[in-house]
Amino acid sequence: MALIVHKYGGTSMGSTERIRNVAKRVAKWVRAGHQLVVVPSAMSGETNRLLALAKDLAPTKSTASIDREMDAIAATGEQVSVGLLAIALQAEGVQAVSYAGWQVPIRTNSAYTKARIESIDDARVRADLAAGKVVVVTGFQGIDADGHVTTLGRGGSDTSAVAVAAALKAAECLIYTDVDGVYTTDPRVVPLAKRLASISFEEMLEMASLGSKVLQIRSVEFAGKYRVPTRVLSSFTPWDIDLQEEAQSGTLITFEDDSQMEQAVVSGIAFSRDEAKISVLGVPDKPGIAYRILGAVADANIEVDVIIQNVSHDGKTDFSFTVHRNDYSRTVDVLRSKVLPDLGTDRVEGDTHICKVSIVGIGMRSHVGVASKMFRCLSEEGINIQMISTSEIKTSVVIDEKYMELAVRSLHRAFDLDAAPA
Amino acid sequence: MALIVHKYGGTSMGSTERIRNVAKRVAKWVRAGHQLVVVPSAMSGETNRLLALAKDLAPTKSTASIDREMDAIAATGEQVSVGLLAIALQAEGVQAVSYAGWQVPIRTNSAYTKARIESIDDARVRADLAAGKVVVVTGFQGIDADGHVTTLGRGGSDTSAVAVAAALKAAECLIYTDVDGVYTTDPRVVPLAKRLASISFEEMLEMASLGSKVLQIRSVEFAGKYRVPTRVLSSFTPWDIDLQEEAQSGTLITFEDDSQMEQAVVSGIAFSRDEAKISVLGVPDKPGIAYRILGAVADANIEVDVIIQNVSHDGKTDFSFTVHRNDYSRTVDVLRSKVLPDLGTDRVEGDTHICKVSIVGIGMRSHVGVASKMFRCLSEEGINIQMISTSEIKTSVVIDEKYMELAVRSLHRAFDLDAAPA
Repeated sequence: MALIVHKYGGTSMGSTERIRNVAKRVAKWVRAGHQLVVVPSAMSGETNRLLALAKDLAPTKSTASIDREMDAIAATGEQVSVGLLAIALQAEGVQAVSYAGWQVPIRTNSAYTKARIESIDDARVRADLAAGKVVVVTGFQGIDADGHVTTLGRGGSDTSAVAVAAALKAAECLIYTDVDGVYTTDPRVVPLAKRLASISFEEMLEMASLGSKVLQIRSVEFAGKYRVPTRVLSSFTPWDIDLQEEAQSGTLITFEDDSQMEQAVVSGIAFSRDEAKISVLGVPDKPGIAYRILGAVADANIEVDVIIQNVSHDGKTDFSFTVHRNDYSRTVDVLRSKVLPDLGTDRVEGDTHICKVSIVGIGMRSHVGVASKMFRCLSEEGINIQMISTSEIKTSVVIDEKYMELAVRSLHRAFDLDAAPA
Repeated sequence: MALIVHKYGGTSMGSTERIRNVAKRVAKWVRAGHQLVVVPSAMSGETNRLLALAKDLAPTKSTASIDREMDAIAATGEQVSVGLLAIALQAEGVQAVSYAGWQVPIRTNSAYTKARIESIDDARVRADLAAGKVVVVTGFQGIDADGHVTTLGRGGSDTSAVAVAAALKAAECLIYTDVDGVYTTDPRVVPLAKRLASISFEEMLEMASLGSKVLQIRSVEFAGKYRVPTRVLSSFTPWDIDLQEEAQSGTLITFEDDSQMEQAVVSGIAFSRDEAKISVLGVPDKPGIAYRILGAVADANIEVDVIIQNVSHDGKTDFSFTVHRNDYSRTVDVLRSKVLPDLGTDRVEGDTHICKVSIVGIGMRSHVGVASKMFRCLSEEGINIQMISTSEIKTSVVIDEKYMELAVRSLHRAFDLDAAPA
């Protein structure tokens, strides 16, 4: 018997028929002798419907008072879900009780619309579990020190589930989602992509932030911080598949020192088409130049990803970085109006037809030559590398977007990730 | 400057456009220097939508655990409304904050789906009012001693508004609704029906329970118990009508001893077509007979209205009563299976084509001959009276339903309630 946390997304909760199937699946785990805490999302479309109503009424300029009301409104979506699931479980003959975040309570800071969990009181949940009940807890929300309802921001239910699992020291947190696990890369690009049986949480962090949108990045950080064994698995399997089979499916996020597995050097290939490159040419190579350029960009609330400063030439250098493609023209405007006049150059160039391709693998730490193998592979395909960025467990390159699929497929093969053809 | 409570129904909150109009109306009162607490219902249709989802999942047999979840789900409708209205008020430039019942808190007993308010903590609301904010509070719901969300049952938002007004000792509680006040009778039956500028709360109780469905009966009881000056007025007037005119519109529910008004003998004519008459004939005229008949009916959870026991004749009597028309056949079944075999009679007769017409007036207490004037009026119209029931401030008769309109119109005229023709 183990204490298990299940998390179900909005699609799984999308209709009463689907909620009934979630209840049957949870009941199967209960009948196998486990204690269950379930964290469901709002019914699909509900959070958007609620926020659209609120935005229709809101003034153009948002304030903390407006955000407070937005959170109180959005939080009702999950409050409906937990009640419905608790009812469906009782209809299955399983004792169940639902709690909103404020009832547990799940305490957060007061950063409305993007609050962070500070603590979770486990007394009430533990008492119910001891009494033989399934406890259904709202994701996405909590309560601040002044008794106001807060939300964690989009995808926050994953984080709630992992946080609840951490607070209860659950044996495992199972995230049921519309993909059946984490793949070596996107199977739509590489048909031979393989599902990983396990992935280290550091790799998962890199894969998630690089665009393999399986789990919300904050939930992965939480899982790592509190070492919560977290499994991503499919919500589309029939509810009555064998429990042992279900328990071994999907991808388990592991922590290096409790894993005896042989790590592949590279675990996966991530890519993103959402970026744009901007270069400021011929700037004086002086201390503070990076700050003068990127400070202004940060002040405009624009996030910068890859940053490259070339070696200088005659006291001048070229400075390049990437931003989200949606922020491209705004970034160029900021540079032209606030930065370039002081730098003595007006040469800014941009390219929105680029992409970023990354190899990710915890094995890179202890293996030399991994990056150069990547560069050789791309060179053999005749793909020109425009920018390079490296970290301990990933190497990213910026290339022309027309080569993206070619690069991903070639790297997938070069690093022995292709599945054996069926 | 006065502290005023406004209550708006689901129709007034039915769309963002309508919510914007509610916000403009409230803002008008704030700009006139008043402190405002607003209690809005859920958006029209929302409570039904939520309960339909829940009922689709619920097992046939309800339990307290199921009812608890029903309440948590249904309560979210008003939680969305208060947030939306608080946002709309801020868009109008008025400071506002919303609270769910549990945040105030509004404390109730634990009778899920039909909880009763036990106390309201006014500290938080008063602090916000003192800080110049409009406070928007959910109707229909509260929290019990164990921290579970409860609802007050259908129409409970009227009760919440009056209870909040009582707790805050508000100068007046304004119930904005889809009728423009309380009439001497239904204007659809008597086109010359007049709106009453005021009505005593005892008369209002009789009018409400007799079918003039303007205010939920519990809210009227609450208003009487705590002497809350409560006004029913139209939500369909333009939001920008003159505030003095709006403040005098509708019907004010008053308390006898603080009213100097000359009371009309009869204030209104109420009627109901929802009843059915049942007679048990030839029962032994012995002590306990009423209990043996009505006890079984009450055990079946059937509500009885008018009750008549005729004088006995040869040790036998006839016993008649009325029930809601929907309960008619179930009542007859209960009598035949559980009561008649013990009474030595099988003679039960019923009539579903009856109606009840009542004259209501606090002036009846001090005026003799009011009932006989009613009977004379009906007799002059050739209407046969089947049952009579009287209380201090009303007299009801049961008659053939085909005479209902005739009876109501004749009585309306006989008691001088007709408006001067326009």
